[in-house]
Amino acid sequence: MPADRPISINIVTTRERWSLAQAIDGYAGRGVAGIGTWSEAVREIGTTQAARRIRDAGLTVTGHLVGGLLTDADPAARRARIDDNLRVIEEAAELGARCVVTIAGGLPAGERDLAGARARALDGLAEILPAARAAGVTLGLEPLHPMICAARSVLPTLEMANDWYEALSADGDTTGLGGGLGVVVDVYAVWWDPNLAREIDRAKGRICAFHVSDWLAETVDLRLDRGMMGDGVIDIPGIRAMVEAAGFDGLPEVEIFSARDWWRRDPDEVVRTAIERCRTAV
Amino acid sequence: MPADRPISINIVTTRERWSLAQAIDGYAGRGVAGIGTWSEAVREIGTTQAARRIRDAGLTVTGHLVGGLLTDADPAARRARIDDNLRVIEEAAELGARCVVTIAGGLPAGERDLAGARARALDGLAEILPAARAAGVTLGLEPLHPMICAARSVLPTLEMANDWYEALSADGDTTGLGGGLGVVVDVYAVWWDPNLAREIDRAKGRICAFHVSDWLAETVDLRLDRGMMGDGVIDIPGIRAMVEAAGFDGLPEVEIFSARDWWRRDPDEVVRTAIERCRTAV
Repeated sequence: MPADRPISINIVTTRERWSLAQAIDGYAGRGVAGIGTWSEAVREIGTTQAARRIRDAGLTVTGHLVGGLLTDADPAARRARIDDNLRVIEEAAELGARCVVTIAGGLPAGERDLAGARARALDGLAEILPAARAAGVTLGLEPLHPMICAARSVLPTLEMANDWYEALSADGDTTGLGGGLGVVVDVYAVWWDPNLAREIDRAKGRICAFHVSDWLAETVDLRLDRGMMGDGVIDIPGIRAMVEAAGFDGLPEVEIFSARDWWRRDPDEVVRTAIERCRTAV
Repeated sequence: MPADRPISINIVTTRERWSLAQAIDGYAGRGVAGIGTWSEAVREIGTTQAARRIRDAGLTVTGHLVGGLLTDADPAARRARIDDNLRVIEEAAELGARCVVTIAGGLPAGERDLAGARARALDGLAEILPAARAAGVTLGLEPLHPMICAARSVLPTLEMANDWYEALSADGDTTGLGGGLGVVVDVYAVWWDPNLAREIDRAKGRICAFHVSDWLAETVDLRLDRGMMGDGVIDIPGIRAMVEAAGFDGLPEVEIFSARDWWRRDPDEVVRTAIERCRTAV
């Protein structure tokens, strides 16, 4: 990657030490071009103020989280979640986010019906999609790693994300972004997949976000032990080449959940390292 | 499952408290019909004695571990591994094991070339397959969970196991056991897979072993935190029905790696619980 190639950082990467306002200033001040945001943080200062600060700092919002989580069978829980999605979509519109990063949700407590949970998630996405379209917002379907299938995402592969994309594209537009739908490729979630090249190619024109981190050889936690790019085993440049060949032309977004390492470090060091590693290992 | 339906237990399930000899007696004495063995334990007392004890106890060997681990690029390491596989095949023949449970191996230290590691594993399997055929032993290709792709198995899906089965079946027999090849279905490894039903059906007649344990909602370790059947989220009876519809008629084999729970308990309780749960939750 050219030394001046711009990147984005998701605020979860510095979440233990920097507020949203600090992250906006901290990223922009160090030459980062984009930011990935979470509702939880945006709501603390209000969407209008968050949008203004981000705009004033000159940052692009490469993704806003979190959409989806639509596997609940309980009607009240489901309704609350749909309402939250509608609010997230409004936030994303006001932030000018390239997409709402949208995950399926896990198996509800005590359930074993994976097919049922998947059907509910897909139904829920169909229910919120018109609001996204009306707001000019793209729902980016993000498969997560199969190890968090039960806890967080019954959508474990890019193949299934492509299947859902096509199932939801009632207007027949299954070949590109638009119509309120996209897919998100996170190298941490998909690097192991034997069908990865085929499914990235199938996602041609659909990829609205590209998330980078690394898989550590000695991973000690299923959710919070992601590594910095270059410290693990993922062929990130290889996946990046495929994603760009499939038409993705946005900023790579660094998103690192790291309870034992990066979350404990000085955010300034984290940001400097992320920028450097995006040059050498992405 | 009928109350008297026989089961097998893999010795890893009681490995912290029982030797192989104790496991043979402990399982057989409590009505277990089969045993899954590991070379490491068999070599301690010698294959001939292990085979005699198992036979005298009336147990079937539902699988012998571990075959494969053939991803090394270093020629000496690879040669040593091939030799070990040949020894494992001989052991399996003498034990009368239904199969050698064969895993791919992970990414060698410092490597990121997943396609290369997969190619080497497949080449290695082709190299040991004639010895298995000559010995009348079946190599059971077992995909493992994608979360241990780097550490242990670059073969993460049943789809890829079926692909490898077919690639290795040079004689054109791709529709059943025999020719030294089979596939192993472990519910813990595959339960999350959207293509599971399709790939189990594709494996019709090929399935030489069926391993059961459970995925705990609060999993804390990537390798050693499997749950007892019924304590987790896997629809084990659903997968069992598919496996049996695909022609598997052997014993379900209980295989539980559980450093924080079952390995610490009295093996007598573990065996009793496994038998009971195979009635109620498998």
